[in-house]
Amino acid sequence: MGGDYAPSEAVKGVALYLNDDSKTCLIYCIGNEAEIQPLLDSCGIAADPRIKVVHAAQTIGYNEHPTKALKEKPESSIAVGFHLLATGKIHAFISAGNTGAMLVGAMYTIKSIEGVLRPTIPSLVPKLNGANGLLVDVGLNADCKPEQLNQFAILGSAYASNVLQIDNPKVALLNVGEEAEKGNLLCQATYPLLKENTAINFVGNIESRDLFKDKADVIVCDGFTGNIVLKMAESIYEIAAERQLENDSFLSRFHYENYGGTPILGIDKPVIIGHGISNDKAFSNMIIQAEQMIASAFCSKIKSLFKA
Amino acid sequence: MGGDYAPSEAVKGVALYLNDDSKTCLIYCIGNEAEIQPLLDSCGIAADPRIKVVHAAQTIGYNEHPTKALKEKPESSIAVGFHLLATGKIHAFISAGNTGAMLVGAMYTIKSIEGVLRPTIPSLVPKLNGANGLLVDVGLNADCKPEQLNQFAILGSAYASNVLQIDNPKVALLNVGEEAEKGNLLCQATYPLLKENTAINFVGNIESRDLFKDKADVIVCDGFTGNIVLKMAESIYEIAAERQLENDSFLSRFHYENYGGTPILGIDKPVIIGHGISNDKAFSNMIIQAEQMIASAFCSKIKSLFKA
Repeated sequence: MGGDYAPSEAVKGVALYLNDDSKTCLIYCIGNEAEIQPLLDSCGIAADPRIKVVHAAQTIGYNEHPTKALKEKPESSIAVGFHLLATGKIHAFISAGNTGAMLVGAMYTIKSIEGVLRPTIPSLVPKLNGANGLLVDVGLNADCKPEQLNQFAILGSAYASNVLQIDNPKVALLNVGEEAEKGNLLCQATYPLLKENTAINFVGNIESRDLFKDKADVIVCDGFTGNIVLKMAESIYEIAAERQLENDSFLSRFHYENYGGTPILGIDKPVIIGHGISNDKAFSNMIIQAEQMIASAFCSKIKSLFKA
Repeated sequence: MGGDYAPSEAVKGVALYLNDDSKTCLIYCIGNEAEIQPLLDSCGIAADPRIKVVHAAQTIGYNEHPTKALKEKPESSIAVGFHLLATGKIHAFISAGNTGAMLVGAMYTIKSIEGVLRPTIPSLVPKLNGANGLLVDVGLNADCKPEQLNQFAILGSAYASNVLQIDNPKVALLNVGEEAEKGNLLCQATYPLLKENTAINFVGNIESRDLFKDKADVIVCDGFTGNIVLKMAESIYEIAAERQLENDSFLSRFHYENYGGTPILGIDKPVIIGHGISNDKAFSNMIIQAEQMIASAFCSKIKSLFKA
């Protein structure tokens, strides 16, 4: 029930995903059954055995206070989803609804993996060579300590290798210069931690001018900086579209629908948060993303990485 | 003698500037006279009464240590330039040479204006409506305190109104959300200072997605964030050029040559630092920029703004 075009685009996204007959996942559609059922019908997937509708009588709006809403609306699609995930009925949970409620649910119902200081959210970065990089954190942690950035590197690297299937991903620190001693105090203190970290393939500092080149696969930064970069990249797509340049093979890749959603890294189970404006393609991509997180046993791998 | 194409592009830039017969500035060309004279000849400006060649026997290279080089090479074009500026022989100094040496000279030979905690460097931001905004700081101060950001707002606003001739410039804080309480600790502490600052027209927070829109004329941030934004914008131009999109009327405005150079705000006299790759157009624009700083008595206005 989350997203500007809910539940219609979510259902269309499920239909798009199920178009591929080789898919064997069971998709739980959580929401108002009376609204969902006719949509499944019109998409021609009402009888698909890979779909199960779970009724949720309540909805959390965009402007509701996350913690309060989750507590007061146990029948909302988000609360029901987290309950199903926590009790092992489903293996991953996706929503384009209230982002705050998704984060609160992830932190308090699913919880962080032991040893993880703070979970983090990454974003894909389209590279000029056609591949994707990963920028982490893009907004969950505005102020960071060096130890957190070092953990984001581990989490991002594990996501890149397991979900994006990048072999031995190159990890870099986003900085204002390439030399080790460059940057603000946070970067100066983080660099040696990354350099000594044997769990990652650290390649040094990267400047934002090289963000779209092939210098790194995983780019680490604090959530304030990452959010500034992410939203600037989004505006580039928007500007390109206004100027009829959105079909350029590189600029078109800045369109949010290609990314699916944002996984929360460092929590116990796969949770993916979609953009409020998610369309069918975005929903379908989020399901594929969740599938890859499940198939690669991503969360178990993170657990073993953080085992003392 | 500074810049990748020195002194040829600098001389060509002077010629370009002097093409306009209404210009009455006297241009001191500081450098190796034996190299400069033939270039003035070939540009047809050797006899122009608005040119004066000042011989400087030494040159500071790109990789030299700034403080050491300035001390050991008093006959370098940068050292001579700062000497002429400090002693009042010239009213503004421009160079595309060693950036570190330019900054050291500005700080120690010219000095900060009393009351200015830290000088700052801004960059022009092309806006979609054709106008230019100003982003400040873009790299001089990686770590900032709220009081510094508040001063950058005053310095940037004064530059926007006096040099860019923007009436009552709108000042905004670069942040990850529009609400007052958003952001990292620095932004949260800076917001109330900007709000209470009667010397500026504060319009609130601005997200990076709105950087190129008309929401603000002066956008304030710490130098780490500003440098990340600046270099990302530069890479957009570079990518656009590679993809034959550089003639797009908006994207073309990201080309450095249109900006001229970066003034250092908060010091006693006008100093402009050019990009190492500065061409004739960039040099000509830097002279125009210096002319506007002199004509508007920019530094005197800053002095009176910071008078206790």
